[in-house]
Order: sequence, then C-alpha cells, then structure tokens
Amino acid sequence: MPPVKRTNSDDPISTLVDLLSRLPGIGEKSAQRMTFHILRQDRAYAAALADALTRLGRDVQACSECHNLTHQNPCALCRDQRRDPAVLCVVATPQDLMAVEACGEYRGHYHVLGGLLSPLEGVGPEGLNIQPLITRLSRMEVKEVILALRPSVEGESTSFYLKRLLSPLVAKVTRIASGIPMGGELEYADKVTLARALTGRHLA
Amino acid sequence: MPPVKRTNSDDPISTLVDLLSRLPGIGEKSAQRMTFHILRQDRAYAAALADALTRLGRDVQACSECHNLTHQNPCALCRDQRRDPAVLCVVATPQDLMAVEACGEYRGHYHVLGGLLSPLEGVGPEGLNIQPLITRLSRMEVKEVILALRPSVEGESTSFYLKRLLSPLVAKVTRIASGIPMGGELEYADKVTLARALTGRHLA
Repeated sequence: MPPVKRTNSDDPISTLVDLLSRLPGIGEKSAQRMTFHILRQDRAYAAALADALTRLGRDVQACSECHNLTHQNPCALCRDQRRDPAVLCVVATPQDLMAVEACGEYRGHYHVLGGLLSPLEGVGPEGLNIQPLITRLSRMEVKEVILALRPSVEGESTSFYLKRLLSPLVAKVTRIASGIPMGGELEYADKVTLARALTGRHLA
Repeated sequence: MPPVKRTNSDDPISTLVDLLSRLPGIGEKSAQRMTFHILRQDRAYAAALADALTRLGRDVQACSECHNLTHQNPCALCRDQRRDPAVLCVVATPQDLMAVEACGEYRGHYHVLGGLLSPLEGVGPEGLNIQPLITRLSRMEVKEVILALRPSVEGESTSFYLKRLLSPLVAKVTRIASGIPMGGELEYADKVTLARALTGRHLA
C-alpha cells in the first residue's frame, strides 16, 4: 500500500516536503528530515533560506561576458582587475567553473559554454556559447585558452572541435590533464585512464 | 588545501549553497547540485520554495491540543470529526506522527510528547508534554491509549513510565509491536529483536 499523501497544499510543512523532494537525490524521507530540521532552527534560518531563494529566482542571470550565472552583470569574476586577462578557461557549466575556482590554482578569466556538443541530444555548436567566445577572443588579448571539459565522449569531441576552431585565433590552446586521480590506485584505474596517464607523462 | 570559500554574502548562489549545506545529510557538493537544479527549473519553483519557507517560519506552531506542529490551531487532525475520539496514539515527535499517519492503519487522535525521557540528557517528565496529556485524558472519552514510541532504552522507559501513570486513567494502555520488520531475515535479526518477536507471538 503506498503511503497516504497529504494533499493539503495550504499546509506549509507538507508543501515544503513536497517541493524539497523534487530536488535531485532528495527522497520524501530526506525532505521530511530537512523540513523538521528547519523547524527546529532559529526562525531566522528559514527566513534567510526564503530570502536567498527569492533573490535566486529574481536576480540571477547569465553574465553577458562569460555566461556564468551571476546576480551582477558583468559578474564579479569578469570585473576583477586582479585576474590575468591573458588566460581564458573554457568550462561546460557554472558548476564546473565553481569547481575550477575552488581548487585555487587558476587566476585567469572564464567562459561558460552552457553544455557540451552532443549530436544524440541534438546539441550542436549553435546551441552553445561558442559564437560569443569567438567574439570575446577577437576583443580580448588572450594568449592561452585552457579547455577544462570533462574526459567523456562529449567532452572530448567538444575539445577537439574547439581546438580546431580556436587555434587560428589564439597563440595556445591547451587541455587540462587526464590521468590517475590523487590518492587513486593504478590497480583499480580503468584502461583508458591509465593509457591517458601514460600518454600525458611529463618529466619527474 | 581546503577549497576556497566564496564569502560574498551578497551573492544569492553562494548564500543558498551555504544555507543548504547546513541541513542534515547535505554536504557542500549536494548543496551546489540542489542550487543549480533550482536555477534550471521554472522560476516559479524557487518562488514556491521561498513562500513555503516563509510560511513555515511564520505560521507553524504547536497545536494546543495534540502538540503536533501545524499552521492552524487546533490542527487539522484534532478538528477532523471523522476520526475516532476513543483512541489516542502517543508519539515522540511530529515526524513519528507523520510516519504513523502515512501507514494508513490508524484513524484515531494523537498526542505528541516532544521527545522521550532521557535522564542522561536531562529530560524528565516535566520536559515533555505529559501533564497536557493527563489533562486531555480527563476531558476526552478515551478508551485506549496506544504508546507508539521507538524500541530504544529511552522509548522503553518512557513507555513504562506512561503505562504506570496512565493505567488508572484509561481502560486500556497498549504498545505497538516490536519484532522482525517486513521483508527482514531472521538470520540477520539481532537477539533482542528476535526475543521480542517471540514474546510478542500471536495466533496464526
């Protein structure tokens, strides 16, 4: 017998449980746990969450320069004068940008494609922010474009496509390394990753 | 090296990631995934979430009758005339009430204790909604009190305490059965559960 659904949409508890359980990886039990956790907190916490969500829905847009999601246009990264304007890192999504930024190794600018080429899903070059990338490159003094796309079929073919397209426009087009992750075991690495690690070997 | 924290509290994306990652079972990566999922949805979804949270923080209170959390007082369950007023189910928390209600087997009223007796954590009878329970029983025509408390040290001692306290006031005080869960294996059941299942045996 399926659990009886509370359908009273007037009830903020069941409404919130219902809305939260639509999030990825959140089932009904987790949504309940989250809701009752929120109820046990200071009321200011629920208010802060509501406010952040309201502003998220109202203020967040794509940056007209790099196409990252932002509440300011141009975004804080594009406006930051301390960043190196000679390097441009191309990523698929704002999440990937956030991951690169969080590693702390990169101080150049970004360009968000908004996805990867995928003929199967009907995503061609015109479905990505590739034309705006070319326009930016013609305007900026970029010496190196770093392709930071994931090592998958789509990532590989997008990198290949962009390398051919951008090589005439910029001095250097590079790709991030693929290989054994830190702490990973050679024994358990798949063949392709190990082959990549070997091909990408460098002086010790 | 720990990930660089974005501290710009003006940014709704990082604010929401930060707030969501304080929820139980939600790490920073899950919070990011949830936030970008919300950004990909229709804007109405973020607005609905914000509204539910605002109402949660503003409208939800303890029902003056059963002490369940509710946006109305008395709550919908207490006001429901179709429910059997002769049976009262005592639970520890609103989550437990929701679980009993969802199983669809129960049509009586509820009483939420707000926790379990726990001398170690300094929770005595006066720290729970026990006096209000006695007051309710003197007012209502209850024939059976069902103790639906979890089979743990605290649950057992609270059940024991309530059985002694309520027996003079009500014709029947019962406890929910403890035993092998549906689909569970006898082979993997712990000794106490199996002993409980044997003690609680009934005619087949």
